[in-house]
Amino acid sequence: MQLIKYPKQKDWGKILQRPAFDSSSLEKKVKRILDAVKKDGDTAIKKFTSEFDRVNLKTVKVTKKEIENASKSVPKDLQKAIKLAKTNIEKFHKAQSTQIEVIETMPGVKCWRKNVAIEKVGLYIPGGLAPLFSTLLMLGIPARIAGSKEIVVCSPPDKNGKLHPAILFVAGLLGIESIYKVGGVQAVAAMAYGTKSIPKVYKIFGPGNQYITCAKQLAQKDGLAIDMPAGPSEVAVYADESANPSFVAADLLSQAEHGPDSQVILLTNSVALARRIENEIESQLEQLPRKQIAQRALENSKIILVKDAEHAIEILNEYAPEHLILSCKNASKLAVKVVNAGSVFIGHYSPESVGDYASGTNHTLPTNGYAKSYSGVSLDSFVKKITFQELSKVGLKSIGKSVELMAEAEGLRAHANAVRVRR
Amino acid sequence: MQLIKYPKQKDWGKILQRPAFDSSSLEKKVKRILDAVKKDGDTAIKKFTSEFDRVNLKTVKVTKKEIENASKSVPKDLQKAIKLAKTNIEKFHKAQSTQIEVIETMPGVKCWRKNVAIEKVGLYIPGGLAPLFSTLLMLGIPARIAGSKEIVVCSPPDKNGKLHPAILFVAGLLGIESIYKVGGVQAVAAMAYGTKSIPKVYKIFGPGNQYITCAKQLAQKDGLAIDMPAGPSEVAVYADESANPSFVAADLLSQAEHGPDSQVILLTNSVALARRIENEIESQLEQLPRKQIAQRALENSKIILVKDAEHAIEILNEYAPEHLILSCKNASKLAVKVVNAGSVFIGHYSPESVGDYASGTNHTLPTNGYAKSYSGVSLDSFVKKITFQELSKVGLKSIGKSVELMAEAEGLRAHANAVRVRR
Repeated sequence: MQLIKYPKQKDWGKILQRPAFDSSSLEKKVKRILDAVKKDGDTAIKKFTSEFDRVNLKTVKVTKKEIENASKSVPKDLQKAIKLAKTNIEKFHKAQSTQIEVIETMPGVKCWRKNVAIEKVGLYIPGGLAPLFSTLLMLGIPARIAGSKEIVVCSPPDKNGKLHPAILFVAGLLGIESIYKVGGVQAVAAMAYGTKSIPKVYKIFGPGNQYITCAKQLAQKDGLAIDMPAGPSEVAVYADESANPSFVAADLLSQAEHGPDSQVILLTNSVALARRIENEIESQLEQLPRKQIAQRALENSKIILVKDAEHAIEILNEYAPEHLILSCKNASKLAVKVVNAGSVFIGHYSPESVGDYASGTNHTLPTNGYAKSYSGVSLDSFVKKITFQELSKVGLKSIGKSVELMAEAEGLRAHANAVRVRR
Repeated sequence: MQLIKYPKQKDWGKILQRPAFDSSSLEKKVKRILDAVKKDGDTAIKKFTSEFDRVNLKTVKVTKKEIENASKSVPKDLQKAIKLAKTNIEKFHKAQSTQIEVIETMPGVKCWRKNVAIEKVGLYIPGGLAPLFSTLLMLGIPARIAGSKEIVVCSPPDKNGKLHPAILFVAGLLGIESIYKVGGVQAVAAMAYGTKSIPKVYKIFGPGNQYITCAKQLAQKDGLAIDMPAGPSEVAVYADESANPSFVAADLLSQAEHGPDSQVILLTNSVALARRIENEIESQLEQLPRKQIAQRALENSKIILVKDAEHAIEILNEYAPEHLILSCKNASKLAVKVVNAGSVFIGHYSPESVGDYASGTNHTLPTNGYAKSYSGVSLDSFVKKITFQELSKVGLKSIGKSVELMAEAEGLRAHANAVRVRR
């Protein structure tokens, strides 16, 4: 890891720069797949599944039987763990429900908002080496709480034409029946435009590689809503002398193992601590099955030496990390000063991985600095907020003249008339 | 207006289809302007302002003096009207603030969300023939309530290099000082990439024509957040025999006058009422300064005859109108069944124009069927919701094993380790 000592503010931007991905070269390839699915539907889906996933499927829909059988192949202790995670995620997301509150802005002028579920949503769950059943929990639970009527799940099949049993187990647990063995750009296309087998949805959620991201962005231009733009996962840790080097090293490695493009940043006020953490990383690294991936990620990673916690927070707010771990004294107090981050982990006993799986917060979070303007996925992501207003005769009278004057001043006579005829 | 009687469900899609805009032909032109501003900054801004707005400006920033002087040219009764609108919009949007609620999902596992203002936002306010000062109220007020530190406003100058005094008056009222005489694609570019005079922001809001929309979408691909995709404005009205034909006609015309591409749809259970409304439209139309625009919009508009209110709601939920007026008996009851709409106007005394200006709800709403997945602008649009978690030693112990099991099952050993080293 590169060590940077007390950088000046003018250099923060350069130091914290993420690798830029130019998707324009992908766009052509991705668009070709989107267009083919738009035109040929299921035929195109099967063709691409054969081409990319190396499996020929007769039907892409997962059967009820497959879902029922899945639980048999999921170890009982993992089932229990998943159920505990589900309970916590449900608790946290249910608490995000809101009641309708009618505001009488003037006598006789009543206004309110109502949260209504997006009726049809699509969840993309990556498969392959890492079958992300945790992502199905993170997306499926708020979709269920919101009350989406149609929840469509797509995930790439393995070479035997199967989905990982843990994914199917979670689907069964959440009562999701519309699951398709389709991955990649073709899955996004199917959910965005619909095929005979796979229903079209209004909003697509879920992580993915650059191809998936590009496909979601192109579908967005066609009117589909998406959860958020995505980039490589990232963590930033601030650790002071109160931190345990072994904890911090483990946290940094848990991000580094995601992929060679993962972003890992450590800020600390102690050069001695930085050294101890580096030593810990080296020894923990040896035990990891994904050692090579983690090693490559660490090559691009940085240790930034700062004067104190205040200084660290300034840099961190500029970086806007997806995950932010505060392993320091008075971490709760420091957390109050966080302005840009996806999710914040406070104190020595809050590793990122608890949020990835089971604390209750959502793990679908803004990367790439998007935390400056985007929120992570929550119950809000699965609803629209419709506004309502109901005026009485009195209400219209008291507000009417103002509306007429403003409409006329904007040159919109008919707008004024709509009030005038009623007064 | 075209009359369609009792359409079958399979035909709804075709009947309710909006005109499709293919922005791909615009993209090249728009991209050229974005790239020029990215490269040449203020020099490009001035060049395009001279080219498109036909005015040469030395400085693009509005001075304090200009803002102070604006109130002198705004009639006192309009000032009063704007202040009343401001009060109502503030009341409704302040009520959208939320308190932090800490959820203890398990003993020792505390999770919460906190709304934090997006620090830098850009508001685009169209000018020209219709100076939309009401839009500055609708965007500036929630930005202020959220607490955005930098609120940048861009609006195209007139031929004398001025902004409409009502726009400046509203800016003064809201304490917004960062206002620039820049319009069109170059304004979006300036706020997205920043120039020497105009600060870069994290999210851009505001309506505009196809060029503005295309520019916002291209900037979005570069990582900027935008309020929502935009299309021509639209209204759908359901009216039954209890409705006043003159009220309904005025409502339809108030939408039609927006532009020749405005969408106007009337649903009714009474053919006699439909005729009376058409007659009313003809006579009211004569009085309108924007008669020709409205006439063209009406040519594409439709009257759909339905059996009853239930039937109407089904069609309306499929259409997902930006504005929905329920001019009928038991309108409140019917409103409960609305699933897809931007804003709903209930009963005979709630014309759309009250929501456009002063009832308190926001007038920046999803068009083009986007109401199926997007909400209108609200306080939420100006904040990110950051999640936090703080675990005690006990909390980590009770959740730890589950996290380890799930991480191992996803093949992520280092994620498991981050918990293991702490247990």
